[in-house]
Amino acid sequence: MSDGPRTAVLALGGNAISPPGERSSIADQFRHTRDSLGPIVDLAVEGWNLCVVHGNGPQVGDELVRNEVARSEVAPLPLGVLVANTAGWIGYMIQQSIENALRKAGSGRRVATVITQVVVDPADPALSAPTKFIGHAVPEARAAALERDGHTVRRDARGNHRRVVGSPAPLAIHELDIIRDLVKRGVIVIACGGGGIPVYRDPRLGLEGVDAVVDKDFAAAVLARELGAELFVILTDVDAVYADWGQPNQRRLTSLTADQADVLDRTGGLGEGSMAPKVRAAVDYVRRTGGRAIITELSRGIDAVHGKAGTTIAR
Amino acid sequence: MSDGPRTAVLALGGNAISPPGERSSIADQFRHTRDSLGPIVDLAVEGWNLCVVHGNGPQVGDELVRNEVARSEVAPLPLGVLVANTAGWIGYMIQQSIENALRKAGSGRRVATVITQVVVDPADPALSAPTKFIGHAVPEARAAALERDGHTVRRDARGNHRRVVGSPAPLAIHELDIIRDLVKRGVIVIACGGGGIPVYRDPRLGLEGVDAVVDKDFAAAVLARELGAELFVILTDVDAVYADWGQPNQRRLTSLTADQADVLDRTGGLGEGSMAPKVRAAVDYVRRTGGRAIITELSRGIDAVHGKAGTTIAR
Repeated sequence: MSDGPRTAVLALGGNAISPPGERSSIADQFRHTRDSLGPIVDLAVEGWNLCVVHGNGPQVGDELVRNEVARSEVAPLPLGVLVANTAGWIGYMIQQSIENALRKAGSGRRVATVITQVVVDPADPALSAPTKFIGHAVPEARAAALERDGHTVRRDARGNHRRVVGSPAPLAIHELDIIRDLVKRGVIVIACGGGGIPVYRDPRLGLEGVDAVVDKDFAAAVLARELGAELFVILTDVDAVYADWGQPNQRRLTSLTADQADVLDRTGGLGEGSMAPKVRAAVDYVRRTGGRAIITELSRGIDAVHGKAGTTIAR
Repeated sequence: MSDGPRTAVLALGGNAISPPGERSSIADQFRHTRDSLGPIVDLAVEGWNLCVVHGNGPQVGDELVRNEVARSEVAPLPLGVLVANTAGWIGYMIQQSIENALRKAGSGRRVATVITQVVVDPADPALSAPTKFIGHAVPEARAAALERDGHTVRRDARGNHRRVVGSPAPLAIHELDIIRDLVKRGVIVIACGGGGIPVYRDPRLGLEGVDAVVDKDFAAAVLARELGAELFVILTDVDAVYADWGQPNQRRLTSLTADQADVLDRTGGLGEGSMAPKVRAAVDYVRRTGGRAIITELSRGIDAVHGKAGTTIAR
C-alpha cells in the first residue's frame, strides 16, 4: 500500500451515459449520466483518487450516421478523430455531472477531461482482420456505399448490417504522466474516452493515428496497471459474472481467482457477448499488479467495492 | 517577473488548422496544422510555459451540416456539446502535431488537451440578441427549417444565409486550477478550444450549459489574465494591426498603447471585420495585467515575440 490515498480506475459502460434503446437525445444522455454517477461520487467522498474511462458506442454510432448522411457536403472524419470528438463531448457531460454531484455531496474535488492517445502496434493482427462491430445498423444501400469506400461491413448476431473495424490491443497510455500527476493531486480525471485514440510511433513522422478503435475495458486495464491503481472496477449492465451464463444452471460468482476466471473463459462458461473480454481485462490487471478487480452493474458500484455486490477477481 | 519560466497564452485562429477555402479534408487539416505550429514549438524550445487556445469555426461549421442533414435519423446536438466535440477533435490534432514537432526539435516537453468550461452570465444581453455568425452558408430551405426549430438565421455580409447565435462575454475559466498546475509543470496545455463550452452556475443544479459560443480571443484574454501570463499572442491571418484599414492610406502599426488602440477602435480605424474584437481582447488583457500583447500572422509569431514583426500592445 502507498502512503497517500488509494487509486481506483473505473471503466464505465455505454449504459452509464445512454439510456437503453438505440436512439437517445442529448437531454436524455445528460439526465442518465447525472443519475449514473453515484458510485463515482461515493468513492470520491470516501477519499479515493479516481480515474474514469468511458465507452462511446452509442455516440460514435450517431456520429458515423451524421458523417455518412452528410458525405456529399462534408468529407467524413476518420475513426480516430471521431473517438477524439466523442471523448470531448462525453467527457464534458461526465465532468459537469460529476462535479455538480460532488458539490451537492459537499465535496470540493475537481474534475478534468484529458484527451488521450493510446499506443498500439501497427502490425497488430486485429488491424488486418477487423471483427469489432461499431455504429448502428445500416440499410443495405448504405452498407454497399461503405464497402465501396473500403470499409468492411458484416451482419451482426441480429442479422443487421454494421461496420466492423480493427480493435488492436492497447500497449501504453501516451498521456500517462499527465494523468498520473492530476490523479495524485486528487483531481478526478476522465481519460481514455472511447478507449482512447489509437496511435502508433512512426520512426520518421512520430505519432500517427490508426483507423481503429481500442476496447475501453482493455485500455482501462492498462491505465490501472500503469497508474499503480489498487482497484479496477468495470461498471456494466450485469450485476456480476455468472458461470454457465444463459444456461438453466447459471450461477452468480461473488469472487474468482485469476486462474478460475481463465478456466471459465476457456471453457465458454462466460457465454457469448461482452462479459468474456471484461473478465480478460480484469484478469490481466490482477495478474500484473496483484490489485483487486471488480465487475458489477453501475448501480451496485459502491456496494461492490465494500464486498457486498458484484464479482471480485484477485490473484 | 516571476522566478520561474515566463508564461505565454497563444490564441490560434481557425486558419492555423484549416487551409483557406470553405471545405477541407481532415488530411488537409492535419497537414496544415503541422505546418502552422512552428511559432509554438519555437517558444517551447525557448523555455516559455505555454497555453494554446484555438478556434473551431470551420470544424463546427462542418458539424452543424452533419447534424442538420442527418436530423431525421439522429437528433442534432446542442451547440455547447458541439464545442466540446470539436475541442476534442482539434485538440487531438494540435497535441499530436505539436508533440511530433517538439521531438524533431529535440524537446521532450509534454502536451495535453483539457476540455474547458467557460463561465458566462445567463443574463448577458448577447444571449437574447444573437449576432455571431456560425457555420457555413445554408440553402434557403435549410434556413427555413432552422428557423422552424427556433434558431436564428440572418444574411451575412456576402448575402448568404447563416445561423447566428449569442456570444456572451467570458467571465472565468472553470478549469483554471487544473490548467495552471499543468502549465507550471511545463506541460503545453491546449485549453478553451473553440472559446470553451459556455456554462453558468444555477443555484440549484450547479453548472449548466448555454446554447451559445464564446469568442476564442476573449476567452484566451481571460485565461492569460487568470494565469498571470506575461505575454498574450493572437495569431491570425493578417501580419499586424493597421490604422485606416482598407483605406488608401492604411498604415501598419508596430506598437500601440492601450489608449491609442481604444481611439482607433472608437473611430472605426480598425475597419469592419475581425480585427476590432482582437484588439479589444488584447487591450483588456494589457490594462488588467500590465503584460504585453501581440497581434500578428501565424508565420511571423516568433519574430513578433522578438519585436521584429506584428503589433505589440502595452499599457
